[in-house]
Amino acid sequence: MTLLYLLDMIGTAAFAASGAWAGVRREMDLFGVLVLGMVTAIGGGTLRDLILGDTPPFCLKDENYLWLSLIVSLLVFIGHRHLKRISNPLLYFDAIGLGTFVVIGTGKALQFNLGPLGAVLMGIMTATAGGVIRDVLSTQVPLILQREIYASACLIGAGLMVTLQYTALPQNLIFILAAATVIILRLFAISRNWALPKAN
Amino acid sequence: MTLLYLLDMIGTAAFAASGAWAGVRREMDLFGVLVLGMVTAIGGGTLRDLILGDTPPFCLKDENYLWLSLIVSLLVFIGHRHLKRISNPLLYFDAIGLGTFVVIGTGKALQFNLGPLGAVLMGIMTATAGGVIRDVLSTQVPLILQREIYASACLIGAGLMVTLQYTALPQNLIFILAAATVIILRLFAISRNWALPKAN
Amino acid sequence: MTLLYLLDMIGTAAFAASGAWAGVRREMDLFGVLVLGMVTAIGGGTLRDLILGDTPPFCLKDENYLWLSLIVSLLVFIGHRHLKRISNPLLYFDAIGLGTFVVIGTGKALQFNLGPLGAVLMGIMTATAGGVIRDVLSTQVPLILQREIYASACLIGAGLMVTLQYTALPQNLIFILAAATVIILRLFAISRNWALPKAN
Repeated sequence: MTLLYLLDMIGTAAFAASGAWAGVRREMDLFGVLVLGMVTAIGGGTLRDLILGDTPPFCLKDENYLWLSLIVSLLVFIGHRHLKRISNPLLYFDAIGLGTFVVIGTGKALQFNLGPLGAVLMGIMTATAGGVIRDVLSTQVPLILQREIYASACLIGAGLMVTLQYTALPQNLIFILAAATVIILRLFAISRNWALPKAN
Repeated sequence: MTLLYLLDMIGTAAFAASGAWAGVRREMDLFGVLVLGMVTAIGGGTLRDLILGDTPPFCLKDENYLWLSLIVSLLVFIGHRHLKRISNPLLYFDAIGLGTFVVIGTGKALQFNLGPLGAVLMGIMTATAGGVIRDVLSTQVPLILQREIYASACLIGAGLMVTLQYTALPQNLIFILAAATVIILRLFAISRNWALPKAN
Repeated sequence: MTLLYLLDMIGTAAFAASGAWAGVRREMDLFGVLVLGMVTAIGGGTLRDLILGDTPPFCLKDENYLWLSLIVSLLVFIGHRHLKRISNPLLYFDAIGLGTFVVIGTGKALQFNLGPLGAVLMGIMTATAGGVIRDVLSTQVPLILQREIYASACLIGAGLMVTLQYTALPQNLIFILAAATVIILRLFAISRNWALPKAN
């Protein structure tokens, strides 16, 4: 699972950068920027582990997640003037994080014998709850609840992963297919400005 | 406990409808409406189970709660133009949910050997935390903290239930008395526009 | 540990008073004031216990915490007109609470074999998460994320406590040194109006 761990770290760093960046934009002080960065990066997985009853959560068992998100957030705070230049690459890393978090969350829920809907929800939550907490802490209505195809990419990826459990495909291949689906959908959504329907 | 399960499902559906409806009013997209509906319906019980250490929480052990709240939220999203006509019956179902959630929450806390104050708080929380999360996600100050008798009905019902534990009454009767108390108080409060005192 | 328990109770009362006071200022009704008071006082320790997997959390095992924060919040609601007179002494009690909560949180995390960064974060969280929940429930951007040295005092105290584990000092002395550091830093910060740098 070395590739998965590497992708997980890339995603953690990207999510931390996006959270810290939100803190900088909202004129928070150093502490606020670090909290937003870390919460965005590890909040979803932590909430998933609390709900599954797997405590202490992943990031307290392997502190690499804490250190990585802390250091990335600190770098964003220090170098935020130069950050606009890398905001485009950041979107790609963010998409990698999204796909990786979905498959890790869904996979862990299946290991804990959750049903199909529960597993799909845990996958979506792993990838999105950190951003929701970030927005709530900044008293913004969470972006994802308003006008983003973001969650749909997670839903499709997690649904694909649960469905493929009923086939004979090897787990590794299922992981790759589901993660790639999320990443590709996400990048398409960015490039084409897709949005979900609103009630009206 | 078949009657309790039925009431629980009615309450879940009513809470999901009220949460989804809040999402529609706030112009959220489909995903936002589904999240608000589900969180309102299952958030209180989920938080209670996390605090009691009973993981995974009830709704991941019995996915009927997930499916019901998902489908009701979807129906609200699709049919929200026609929803005003049923907003009055919805209030009755909502009151049923309130009473049921209080007795289930208080009862479970007592099973987990909590003290009397802890059990009362768990009962109130089971019935109200979903709505609080819904409001926080919409960046509204939770309705219940501002001008509602809502929580008082829960408090009286949960307090009654804990008190009656010291009598010889059978559990089923205690459940019915406490739930009925909440439901009746809630309906009275609606019809008479009761409110708690404010500091001034 | 009788002294620590006494300090813990002083801190709980002070945090409950500050939370209830925030509710009064925001014109909440009685229920809202009680919720804000209790959440501020016990929210941080409860979240810590959920994350460490020590359920039910401390305040449900020893209901003194619940009763104390409930009664203090009620007194604030009743006597808020006279409260301005005691807001200065309240700051001292609040500083005591901050120091005590940090060492209790860090100490418990170390008992649960967390790594150094995890233990420091748990210490900070124990002392600050209650106030964050209070602010989120009032739809305020948490004070601590914006312009407070508050968290830095916790960080230094928790860091000191983790560092001193590598020495031969007795635990009681470590507790006292770390708590005193937080309390003194906090009081200095108040009297000198210190603030952390902002990104600009």
